[in-house]
Amino acid sequence: MTQAYSIFTYKEELKLESGSSLKPIDIAYETYGSLNTDKSNAILICHALTGSSHVAQNKENPESGWWNDMVGPGKAIDTDHYFVICSNILGSCKGTTGPTHINPATKETYGLNFPIITIGDMVTIQKKLVEHLAIDNLYAVIGPSMGGMQALQWAIKYPSNISKCIVLASSASLSAQALAFGNIGRNAIISDKYFQAGGYKATDKPKQGLGIARMIGHLTYLSKESITQKFGRKLQEKERYGYNLDQEFQVESYLKHQGDKFVDQFDANTYLYLSKALSYFDLEKEYGSLKKAFEPIQARLLFISISSDWLYSTDQSKEMVRSCMNLNKDVSFCEVQSDYGHDAFLIEYEKFGSIIKPFLDSHHE
Amino acid sequence: MTQAYSIFTYKEELKLESGSSLKPIDIAYETYGSLNTDKSNAILICHALTGSSHVAQNKENPESGWWNDMVGPGKAIDTDHYFVICSNILGSCKGTTGPTHINPATKETYGLNFPIITIGDMVTIQKKLVEHLAIDNLYAVIGPSMGGMQALQWAIKYPSNISKCIVLASSASLSAQALAFGNIGRNAIISDKYFQAGGYKATDKPKQGLGIARMIGHLTYLSKESITQKFGRKLQEKERYGYNLDQEFQVESYLKHQGDKFVDQFDANTYLYLSKALSYFDLEKEYGSLKKAFEPIQARLLFISISSDWLYSTDQSKEMVRSCMNLNKDVSFCEVQSDYGHDAFLIEYEKFGSIIKPFLDSHHE
Repeated sequence: MTQAYSIFTYKEELKLESGSSLKPIDIAYETYGSLNTDKSNAILICHALTGSSHVAQNKENPESGWWNDMVGPGKAIDTDHYFVICSNILGSCKGTTGPTHINPATKETYGLNFPIITIGDMVTIQKKLVEHLAIDNLYAVIGPSMGGMQALQWAIKYPSNISKCIVLASSASLSAQALAFGNIGRNAIISDKYFQAGGYKATDKPKQGLGIARMIGHLTYLSKESITQKFGRKLQEKERYGYNLDQEFQVESYLKHQGDKFVDQFDANTYLYLSKALSYFDLEKEYGSLKKAFEPIQARLLFISISSDWLYSTDQSKEMVRSCMNLNKDVSFCEVQSDYGHDAFLIEYEKFGSIIKPFLDSHHE
Repeated sequence: MTQAYSIFTYKEELKLESGSSLKPIDIAYETYGSLNTDKSNAILICHALTGSSHVAQNKENPESGWWNDMVGPGKAIDTDHYFVICSNILGSCKGTTGPTHINPATKETYGLNFPIITIGDMVTIQKKLVEHLAIDNLYAVIGPSMGGMQALQWAIKYPSNISKCIVLASSASLSAQALAFGNIGRNAIISDKYFQAGGYKATDKPKQGLGIARMIGHLTYLSKESITQKFGRKLQEKERYGYNLDQEFQVESYLKHQGDKFVDQFDANTYLYLSKALSYFDLEKEYGSLKKAFEPIQARLLFISISSDWLYSTDQSKEMVRSCMNLNKDVSFCEVQSDYGHDAFLIEYEKFGSIIKPFLDSHHE
């Protein structure tokens, strides 16, 4: 896979929410479109658990990005008008400093010596990147799923630095069910014989455990309806059962393929850290209540949920919207009707785009 | 754990649906109450994936059974009136012949040399047991979850031998989503370093893999609401995060405990076989359509679903009910309102009992 991101190295010590600190920090980022002269058209896009800075294709890297249909010239997030920034999150393995990087103190890979990081930490370093780019105010921060948590955190922590905030298929904290699925995935990684307490070598990675974590994750991103429509109970090749313990159903081989593919592209320790950061995110716990959390927000807010998303439910979005309304915030909300489950934000770009575009393009006081 | 079941050994060769055959077969069973003189009060209860013949406490074994509040003197399935039989299913590890038993051909444990078995095979051998008990007609066959599939199979295969059939929280086949969750669990077992292609020793069992399979299973048996109500995002002991990769949330340690407990009580190879039997069950595939499957049924039917059960949904029950109604079968249906998810059949005994009891006790032509 082509990698063509820029690196900003933050050389000062970054104090993390855990109390630990980290230095130096490389931030991998890509930009799209041009910053206008008054620097008023910058949009930061925050990615989800396993994403990267490559949100869309660009000159440096013509490969399709994770939100390719949403971001580009003439698209809903129009790079003819906006200057889009997307950075790989802190703790990830797509260019930004994380467990796969060398710990300068030991000259060895961080592995499990990497400090625990939080969504708040990710946002703190994103702010440093934005400052490095000499941008005072972001026109908008946009994020789906775990990216939505970052967008919310931005609006709360830096209220006077962002004008619009779009939170897609996200929540103020994971539900107990989502916590549990994440934890089973982490258990699968940790119990893999190749995990070696996080000290695995590149040649002997905990593939099975990471694959299982991904299969669980992937399954929770799909709705019951979409799996039924796509695969149902169809067998792979034959019409009759093989009467053995092999994988025979299409849905089984599809998921296994998703797991196997992921293992080649992602790091197991990184998955543990990012999954833990997701688990820790809890605005109510952090600020005492949603009301207190949202109090400082100045940005115009747009929440979008997905009707068939059972991992980040519409109810969770509505709870945030209600809090914002009670605070008289400028808030909009829309539930996108889709059978695709949580993954719809990667698929239904027309439905999402038709809501995001007018919200972004409108200018009113 | 006390084990006090009777054993019936079927000594002839049993031809299985896969084409393989099996001989001899031990069937572990328990009975409750007394068979009346005209042998018209016998009820067979079929257990779910990980159950046993010990459906309720009895003189031989005073330990609480898996449906203790439902079965007994004066209870909904009243053993003062009915003679209740419950047998451990074929392929299980609670007394009936399965992968943990000795293969007489090799004098070694079957392990993965055990033949693939189906719900139909389980029912075939249950019929042999009922014949051995010299009972021609069962007053009722009752089963929750995978037990409901057995009850349905009974009503279809032996239409003139059962008068009433109660199918709880079950379906005519697993949904694609349920197939996928089961498959991830089997993958976790098979990829455990101690699995050893099914040849693990009692001292070195694939505990991690089986534990993960159970955690996944258990989580799918609970509704999102019940997990939120029971655990929410509460931490185990402290108020603050530990900022490490440990399990900190109550829901995490609860699930881990469920996994660990299960590993001591169940066998990994057995789990693979029973999970596969569940996956294979598909009345539409077996008979061409639900209509064709249900055509021969003579029993009065009662379907009960659970409002918050997302693994075996109300829609799946309704589909079966519609087919039965189109065939002018004597069919009743009720959706139990409960927040407990699939597991409600083990918890809401008053709600289930208040439907099951009158259905069982009514006598009409």
